[in-house]
Amino acid sequence: MWLQDAYAMEQEAETMLKAMAGRLEHYPELRARIQAHVEETRQQSSQLETCIARLDGSVPAARGMLADAMAAMHAAGNSMMSDEVAKGVGISYAFEHMEIASYRALVIAAREAGHEDIAAVCSRLLAEGEAMAQWLLEHHESVILAFLARETTEGVTAKR
Amino acid sequence: MWLQDAYAMEQEAETMLKAMAGRLEHYPELRARIQAHVEETRQQSSQLETCIARLDGSVPAARGMLADAMAAMHAAGNSMMSDEVAKGVGISYAFEHMEIASYRALVIAAREAGHEDIAAVCSRLLAEGEAMAQWLLEHHESVILAFLARETTEGVTAKR
Repeated sequence: MWLQDAYAMEQEAETMLKAMAGRLEHYPELRARIQAHVEETRQQSSQLETCIARLDGSVPAARGMLADAMAAMHAAGNSMMSDEVAKGVGISYAFEHMEIASYRALVIAAREAGHEDIAAVCSRLLAEGEAMAQWLLEHHESVILAFLARETTEGVTAKR
Repeated sequence: MWLQDAYAMEQEAETMLKAMAGRLEHYPELRARIQAHVEETRQQSSQLETCIARLDGSVPAARGMLADAMAAMHAAGNSMMSDEVAKGVGISYAFEHMEIASYRALVIAAREAGHEDIAAVCSRLLAEGEAMAQWLLEHHESVILAFLARETTEGVTAKR
C-alpha cells in the first residue's frame, strides 16, 4: 500500500508550505492560501495516520520511493525558496499534482482491496489537493504579473 | 528570464523520460506515449535554444533554481524508476505540471517584455505539456489497475 508514502508526502508538504508562507511577505493573498493549506495538510496527515493504524500490520514498514522523491522535491523547494515566488508557485503546483496522482492511485487501490472507508478518506484528500491546484492555477497570472512589476520597480523586493 | 531554466528542465525531462521508456516493458501503450513525448521534448529543447539565441546577451548566464529543482526531481525519478510504474506516472504527472507552470509564466513574461514571437513558442510548448498531462490523467486508472493485477499474479513483474 502507498498510505505511508502519502503520509511522508504530507509531512514534506507541511514543512515546505510553512517555509514558503513564512517568507512570502509581499504576496499576502498567496501567503494566506498557503497558510490555510498548511492547516489542511496537518489534518490530512492525521487522517492518513488513522488509515494506517486501521490497516495495522498490513502496511509495509519500508518507506517507499515516493517518500524519497518527496524529500528531493522538498530540498529543491528549500533552495528555490531563496529565489523567486514565481518558482515557488511552480513547484507547489507540481507538488499538488504529485499528491493528486498519489491519492487517485490510493482510491483505486483501496477500492480494489475492499477498503471503502480508506477510499473515502483518500477521495476527500484528493479533492483538497485538486482545490489547492486549482487555486494556484487561477492566481498564477496575477502572482507572475505582481512579481514582474515588483522586479522592475527600484527599491522593492520582488522575490518574496 | 526563465528560458534557460526551461531549457534545463527539458534536458532533465528527456533524460528521465528516456530512462522510463526503456524500462516499461509490460506497459506498451504508456511506453509508446512516453517515447513520442521524448521526441516532442527534443524539439522543445531546440525551439528554446532558438529563443535563447534570439535574445542573445539579455539572457542571464546563471542556471536558475528551477534547474536545481529539476535535477532533484530527475534524481528522484531515477530512484523511483527501480520501483513501480505507478510512481513513475505520478512523478511524470507532477513534472508535466512543473513544465506547465513554467511555460505559463514564460508566456506572461515574454508578452510583458514585448517578445510576442517567444510568447508564441512558449504557448505551443505549454499546449504540448498540457496534452501530455491530460494523456497521463486519462490513462492513470488503467495503469494503476494493470499494476495491481500484475502484482497479485504469480510469476509476472508488475513494477515495469
